[in-house]
Amino acid sequence: MTSPVVGVVGAGQLARMLYQASIPLAIPVRVLAAREDDSAARIAQDVMFGAPNSLEALRAFASSCDVVTFDHELVEPEQLRALEAAGVTLRPGAQTAAVVIDKREQRAAMRRIGALVPKHEEVHTFGDIVAFAASSGWPVVLKAARGGYDGRGVWFVRDEHEARTVMEGLAGRPLLVEEYCDIDAEFAVQVARRAGGDVVVYPAVDTVQRDGVFRESVAPSSLDAGITSDAARIATAIATEIDCVGMLAVEFFVAGGRLLTNELAARPHNTAHYTIEGCVTSQFENHLRAVCDLPLGSTALTARAVATVNVFGPDDGSDPASSLADMLTVDDAHVHLYGKRARPGRKLGHVTVCADSREDAIGRARAAADRVASGALGGRR
Amino acid sequence: MTSPVVGVVGAGQLARMLYQASIPLAIPVRVLAAREDDSAARIAQDVMFGAPNSLEALRAFASSCDVVTFDHELVEPEQLRALEAAGVTLRPGAQTAAVVIDKREQRAAMRRIGALVPKHEEVHTFGDIVAFAASSGWPVVLKAARGGYDGRGVWFVRDEHEARTVMEGLAGRPLLVEEYCDIDAEFAVQVARRAGGDVVVYPAVDTVQRDGVFRESVAPSSLDAGITSDAARIATAIATEIDCVGMLAVEFFVAGGRLLTNELAARPHNTAHYTIEGCVTSQFENHLRAVCDLPLGSTALTARAVATVNVFGPDDGSDPASSLADMLTVDDAHVHLYGKRARPGRKLGHVTVCADSREDAIGRARAAADRVASGALGGRR
Repeated sequence: MTSPVVGVVGAGQLARMLYQASIPLAIPVRVLAAREDDSAARIAQDVMFGAPNSLEALRAFASSCDVVTFDHELVEPEQLRALEAAGVTLRPGAQTAAVVIDKREQRAAMRRIGALVPKHEEVHTFGDIVAFAASSGWPVVLKAARGGYDGRGVWFVRDEHEARTVMEGLAGRPLLVEEYCDIDAEFAVQVARRAGGDVVVYPAVDTVQRDGVFRESVAPSSLDAGITSDAARIATAIATEIDCVGMLAVEFFVAGGRLLTNELAARPHNTAHYTIEGCVTSQFENHLRAVCDLPLGSTALTARAVATVNVFGPDDGSDPASSLADMLTVDDAHVHLYGKRARPGRKLGHVTVCADSREDAIGRARAAADRVASGALGGRR
Repeated sequence: MTSPVVGVVGAGQLARMLYQASIPLAIPVRVLAAREDDSAARIAQDVMFGAPNSLEALRAFASSCDVVTFDHELVEPEQLRALEAAGVTLRPGAQTAAVVIDKREQRAAMRRIGALVPKHEEVHTFGDIVAFAASSGWPVVLKAARGGYDGRGVWFVRDEHEARTVMEGLAGRPLLVEEYCDIDAEFAVQVARRAGGDVVVYPAVDTVQRDGVFRESVAPSSLDAGITSDAARIATAIATEIDCVGMLAVEFFVAGGRLLTNELAARPHNTAHYTIEGCVTSQFENHLRAVCDLPLGSTALTARAVATVNVFGPDDGSDPASSLADMLTVDDAHVHLYGKRARPGRKLGHVTVCADSREDAIGRARAAADRVASGALGGRR
């Protein structure tokens, strides 16, 4: 028996870190990249080039793999269903993808397992927004049902005028309207799940977003164990409900004392990059183990506190790689650069520090990330 | 500024693990492989094929790299000097290689910095062995001055007859004769050193050899701090004395209360594979940092005890990869497979476990390694 060939559709940093995790396990990984300078295409040996939204490219790629998984959520569910119908093993499968690609389906799955979600409605006409706001009050949050991430596809609107501007810009794409919540805390829980149903749950990790973009994480979460154990139960139940195979990230927030389940991603996720050094088994290794139907690894923390800070392209367009030596002067800083072309505000890497206290971990992770010239989007502070 | 291209001569498991460590730092690594199924040639993107003892191949390879380092010690020092004369940056350099390739030079360097070494003499004629044994007594140890590793090139001989058989087999290759020591303990210390002279020292790690082959390690060493701190001083002094840039592994033993310095390797080393999960910065990352003249990382342990057990090809010729699922059922087992063609007795991987106690760490690392059918060379037990 040799290991199955794992195909990864998409060649961003997630595929790059999956490739890295595949090396010690000697699991052969092929990557389907759109461009030669994609993050994973720069380091993987076995790269095929093709558009992730071309069924022809996907078919050709899948025919050389035993199991196919994903770096992103860009493939249309109907294409995934066609691949499955042709006998391709997708992990996660087309049915799971159909849920996570659409916030309406995500919310429906959360409600089915009894999770509390922000009050929301589908928007069919402009009147739906007005009616929702009449009951919940302004401001409200508008969310594109599909295609939003890192702050894109999410709008805080204060009145009808702002709402109309957003709707016009969307040109009929499906939309949700949601109550605006005063968020007390944000955190995430990730689980890994095998096809047979085995699940391991990572510790809850506090997350910091700004402008809708994930910036920092600290594990373990500082929230009450009651809240985080509820979240662990919810994340596990969702993984089972949507039959997810591989990693599932569930983002939560706490508002007015309520634990609200917010969003899902059925893949390794930025909020769990800390697991590379901070947990016994990284999310990337467990994703590979799960999609290869291998026993899952321990999710225990390796340190009292683990902080991760994202590295964004500086305003001047310079490459954080030019600051590598500076970043490495910070004690215990684990620097991860994704090898992507530098562009102001683009996510280009992250830094993780394991320490005995939260303050020490986050302080040093920030210090290392700050060695890169102040980031775009206003800089980290 | 972009990162320099690091060329690695040789494509064994050390090059493979160096490649893995290069990914998060986004340091481009090229590999010079002899064969397509070399361990690193199976996963690296940028592989050139050529014989490591061909000056022409080395020149062509080096011309595409900013700095050249090594997976092994197979390149002749005179070829390395020719490369340096042609302007190639070698790390470690030709002068360092000339020391580590020859046990006579190793011993001379150890003595220059005041380290105690086993009593030994160069052998020019058979009479030299007889004379040495007359003073030290039989048995004695014969060692090929060059080319020995993993038990090859070392012979315990009990009398003149056995000594003559070894000498005849060597056909004039240079030889050392050495006192036979009753070894109480064996351990190793690794250091990383930058060109400018900065050095970081890894914790002393207890090592277990059988039939001259390294089998297991446990860090930190259980020996007295007085002994291990002497060893750390010696390892640092040797690195400086031989102007080593990159990783240097120094193997020690304790015999009759004496700390004896035994052997050197100027590269990442099997006895420090535990550093991948067991130290803040692995030997592979620090080797890359050192050869790229980047700040060195912390060598602190990440756990109270870290054990590593080598995985050898089983007698039946089967591939340990077929036991991967079984190995991964052992809690916290970090399984590393090198992707090499399986052959009985061939070193094909290792397992590391971090734990709160030595007994627990070594017990579980052995349990995982034992899931591979009993190894050749008599099996581990």
